[in-house]
Amino acid sequence: MKIVTFAFQGLRRVGRISEDGSHVVPFDLARGVADLGALALVESLAGGEPLPAEQAPVPLDQVRLEAPLPRPRRNIFCVGKNYHEHAREFAKSGFDNSAKGGDDIPEYPIIFSKVPESVVGPGAAIRIPAGISESIDYEAELAVVIGKGGRGIKKERALEHVFGYTIVNDVTARDWQQRHKQWHLGKSFDTFCPMGPCIATAGEFDGTDTRVRCWVNDELRQDSRTSALIFSIPTLIETISAGISLHPGDIIATGTPVGVGIGFQPPRFLKAGDRVRIEIEGIGVLENPVEQG
Amino acid sequence: MKIVTFAFQGLRRVGRISEDGSHVVPFDLARGVADLGALALVESLAGGEPLPAEQAPVPLDQVRLEAPLPRPRRNIFCVGKNYHEHAREFAKSGFDNSAKGGDDIPEYPIIFSKVPESVVGPGAAIRIPAGISESIDYEAELAVVIGKGGRGIKKERALEHVFGYTIVNDVTARDWQQRHKQWHLGKSFDTFCPMGPCIATAGEFDGTDTRVRCWVNDELRQDSRTSALIFSIPTLIETISAGISLHPGDIIATGTPVGVGIGFQPPRFLKAGDRVRIEIEGIGVLENPVEQG
Repeated sequence: MKIVTFAFQGLRRVGRISEDGSHVVPFDLARGVADLGALALVESLAGGEPLPAEQAPVPLDQVRLEAPLPRPRRNIFCVGKNYHEHAREFAKSGFDNSAKGGDDIPEYPIIFSKVPESVVGPGAAIRIPAGISESIDYEAELAVVIGKGGRGIKKERALEHVFGYTIVNDVTARDWQQRHKQWHLGKSFDTFCPMGPCIATAGEFDGTDTRVRCWVNDELRQDSRTSALIFSIPTLIETISAGISLHPGDIIATGTPVGVGIGFQPPRFLKAGDRVRIEIEGIGVLENPVEQG
Repeated sequence: MKIVTFAFQGLRRVGRISEDGSHVVPFDLARGVADLGALALVESLAGGEPLPAEQAPVPLDQVRLEAPLPRPRRNIFCVGKNYHEHAREFAKSGFDNSAKGGDDIPEYPIIFSKVPESVVGPGAAIRIPAGISESIDYEAELAVVIGKGGRGIKKERALEHVFGYTIVNDVTARDWQQRHKQWHLGKSFDTFCPMGPCIATAGEFDGTDTRVRCWVNDELRQDSRTSALIFSIPTLIETISAGISLHPGDIIATGTPVGVGIGFQPPRFLKAGDRVRIEIEGIGVLENPVEQG
């Protein structure tokens, strides 16, 4: 099932995409509840509630898709340097002085966060903040949406805690990421977390081996598979939940493959007028324009 | 004014401490609203609402104080190495291999985050997670509570955006902080953010120069003043809000002075049975026991 959050007739709604892909089938959720987007559904299903009743289908072209979790319940967990080739391009770029020349493959997962309010939906602009940073970069990523929460979740049972998967663009201000050492600020600027177009539920989609591609304008920049992750999705869930209780609706962005802008010499950062298009097989396409200011 | 969140007769309430310090004066807030703790008040005042009506005072010893913001609206912004002497003890400890021997004074503020669910109130246990980490450390900090939100806030006007101040213990699993490079995990374990006992509102309290002390059991470990911060509160607000919109109720923990456990040789980490007591003049005392598991 592909779960979407969408605007229709001025209201936020939650639904699923019809089998033939042409319609949205809205769920019967109270208005205040639907304002949470798919988070409402994730929480109620995790709480043991049945799927809500369905309403009359609406043609997909009559709705505006929003981020499936338009306002995540807390900061998004993000993973750094989680593909070998990307860790190498990052090291080669000279980003970490200490890593120059080395491969810089992490021994343990590198986890940081993005603020929930950085999330924007499909088609929404990634904004380059005038006078603040000009080194804005894209990072195509598969993101895990947690269903059943828990602490001390073991690798072997971790996938039972996955509700589904979506796409995240972990947009980054490279200068801020570098000079502030901890990456939180450079990852959390307003509009720096495009998300969508849907959540593909875990029952029908295998996030552990799917193709991730990213184009800037029409140039293919990133092309890898999640089977190449250094730290697998079960390992990430085990690691994060060892000391931190996970909750329904938590999001883990699993890291980006080789091909980001800072990996080029000279770097190829985003500029106003660019379009970033991410496709993950089995989920769909997330495309966002880049604008100034 | 000292704002508190407290439990009384089984309900969460928000109020202020009476002038003589003997009573809590509850505000007349709807039940669902009061569940947010002082966040409800911070948001409504930031939205231009007047102070709510007051109810009959309750003796302080008849209530149980909770964290003033028991569930912050998003992850807490935290500042690393923001006192000179602490940055030096951290460097000397060998924590950062690259910094050995150096002073390791940051050129730019180091900002990371703690999950909102790590917050616990005065008197609640800091729990050492069995088998996960044994190098649990305390960090006494003054925390800023944002009132009026905004982006691109300039230093000169930053204090206009401060609602008040509270105490945070930025509890840290040093092994996790070190081996995962980014500090998010080692800072976010369940119970790792004791907060309280109140929010001292900005009108009556100057957070830019106040004394911060921390005892473990009865031994004074930290004793400094916030005037010694490397990056002042206005600088922190300007830096964070440059690219990230701040919202009412956001929390910025401003960093800890010299005297943490990892600064000793050998390190003196927390163990079950310890009590950590933090006092900040003008706010009060935050004391928490340490327990196993």
